[in-house]
Amino acid sequence: MRATFMYGAGDVRVENAPDPALQQPTDAIVRIVRSCICGSDLHPYHNLPVSEQGTPMGHEFIGEVEELGSEVSGLKRGDLVVAPFAWADNTCDFCREGLQTSCRNGGFWAAGGIGGAQAEAIRVPQAQGTLVKLPAGEDSALLPSLLTLSDVYGTGYHAAKKANVNPRTTVTVIGDGAVGLMAVLSAKQLGAERIILMGRHKDRTDLGRDFGATDVVPERGQEGIERVRELTGGDGTHTVLEAVGYMSAYEMAVGVIRPGGVISRVGVPQYEEAPIGILSLFGPNITLTGGPAPVRAYIDELLPGVLEGKVEPGRVFDRTMSLDEVPDGYRAMDQRESLKVLVRP
Amino acid sequence: MRATFMYGAGDVRVENAPDPALQQPTDAIVRIVRSCICGSDLHPYHNLPVSEQGTPMGHEFIGEVEELGSEVSGLKRGDLVVAPFAWADNTCDFCREGLQTSCRNGGFWAAGGIGGAQAEAIRVPQAQGTLVKLPAGEDSALLPSLLTLSDVYGTGYHAAKKANVNPRTTVTVIGDGAVGLMAVLSAKQLGAERIILMGRHKDRTDLGRDFGATDVVPERGQEGIERVRELTGGDGTHTVLEAVGYMSAYEMAVGVIRPGGVISRVGVPQYEEAPIGILSLFGPNITLTGGPAPVRAYIDELLPGVLEGKVEPGRVFDRTMSLDEVPDGYRAMDQRESLKVLVRP
Repeated sequence: MRATFMYGAGDVRVENAPDPALQQPTDAIVRIVRSCICGSDLHPYHNLPVSEQGTPMGHEFIGEVEELGSEVSGLKRGDLVVAPFAWADNTCDFCREGLQTSCRNGGFWAAGGIGGAQAEAIRVPQAQGTLVKLPAGEDSALLPSLLTLSDVYGTGYHAAKKANVNPRTTVTVIGDGAVGLMAVLSAKQLGAERIILMGRHKDRTDLGRDFGATDVVPERGQEGIERVRELTGGDGTHTVLEAVGYMSAYEMAVGVIRPGGVISRVGVPQYEEAPIGILSLFGPNITLTGGPAPVRAYIDELLPGVLEGKVEPGRVFDRTMSLDEVPDGYRAMDQRESLKVLVRP
Repeated sequence: MRATFMYGAGDVRVENAPDPALQQPTDAIVRIVRSCICGSDLHPYHNLPVSEQGTPMGHEFIGEVEELGSEVSGLKRGDLVVAPFAWADNTCDFCREGLQTSCRNGGFWAAGGIGGAQAEAIRVPQAQGTLVKLPAGEDSALLPSLLTLSDVYGTGYHAAKKANVNPRTTVTVIGDGAVGLMAVLSAKQLGAERIILMGRHKDRTDLGRDFGATDVVPERGQEGIERVRELTGGDGTHTVLEAVGYMSAYEMAVGVIRPGGVISRVGVPQYEEAPIGILSLFGPNITLTGGPAPVRAYIDELLPGVLEGKVEPGRVFDRTMSLDEVPDGYRAMDQRESLKVLVRP
């Protein structure tokens, strides 16, 4: 099959690779119908050390079940399925608590011998717990929106849920990438009436307004903080959904959060140490939460709205490419020519 | 009057000072009946720069109302009252949300022209919002327990409430000082069945067992982390109540928290930067919360249990001193001869 590998920063190649095969009775083999490129794929695109052996890429997909291990039930060949970006048994105590990213028998795509999703096919461990059957066909116009259940929609929703966004909370979303826009959509769904989107790409913030943003702040750093404070009577907002991951975004989050508020991070932190003492989080009783989203926990909740067309998270895809074009897709996203690239293998 | 001032690390003096007088119509003058020395007073005792002008000390007191400004209602001369360690109007939006430490018209004792409570008398700003009348006399045996409502009991309770401790959560309390022991008591009150107390002073951890600790871990650092993990099947506990404030305590908190859990800090952080990235908080979806406790918010809730004798938080006081003995009280607490010193002016 064809599959995508990264050999170092900026070096993405689509190559022939062995077809995946069942290894465990809990595995499935899925033919990829739609995949995509994630904003978080741009981190290794910037800083992956050069290696002889490429790293498989991609962690979001919709596919068709081709083979099933003997212990997988509830699925059959030909089913159209969506997979969360973390595979999980969905039965252990962590999964039952809704924290499938910490599943005792789970893991992540493109790591530990599991392939990536920017490919023609993939082996799915813990298939019964991981895959969710979709009541849709391969030609459905809903596929882009359904694909966002694999990561960005559930990730934006995780940010909003962990921050306890509700009709009484004001919200700042930091970042106008796909996850930031999904955080806007999620905050709106949870009833927030005031949603300030910090982002400076007009086409993206316009989409953010469609998703529910009431204000857009293009300024960054101290200027951006002051602008949000002006918009909120000097106080900042009850919640901040941080969908970038850079230290500058964390600093803005601390700058615009209201005393007693919640900063919820879903942008993968590109730092380990950060201010959390009296001057930043402790003094004003700020709560810091978030992490890799257990999107599996949210699929059942979010799927109906997508199927009914109440929400169109798939609008974050602004370009569709074939598998062989994936390297150009990375370039286009890195250069901000594209918000998010849909891949049709 | 006599009042306590600190002139630099280790330099505590009890001196003559002007009697406090009403300045605002919202003020009251209170004669101090009981005060005490706080673990957090030991931070300046270790590192306060030398100054010509002393810093007033003390932020916990029960007293008798002596004078009232013209705009204070609901109190009268002779009332016995307890004050939270932050004064507040108790009517602004933050106060109504239960965050009196961020009151729009509030502040802290021993700062900004307000005196300290290790004194014979004190001017109380925003007296109507700040002071809570006690249904007890000056000779009540309950005074030590009632005095803990001023800070340590409410602070321990804040840690447990912010961590959402309940009958289904396991708890680690870091620190066997008065606040740590109050965190144990609070976790027990909120229904926690497993409470692991990390502390190495046997007299204190014995009191912690009386308050509800089910396990005591005297080891510290990596050894302490491993011990707690052994006690919890390798997972750590759902919540950690951090009642120390040093970086070593934060590191232990990160080491013993279960994925998806909550670290709640009430020990005043003696650091500003700390690890919060993928390897510490973000990867396992840990929530970090806490801050200066809005103890005013908890007095109404905690007072009945004290009055009924259901809890005896006043057991944290193991020594009683006169005001002139306060310098020796600091020494005794610093040298761990005393857990918490009660002061009778």
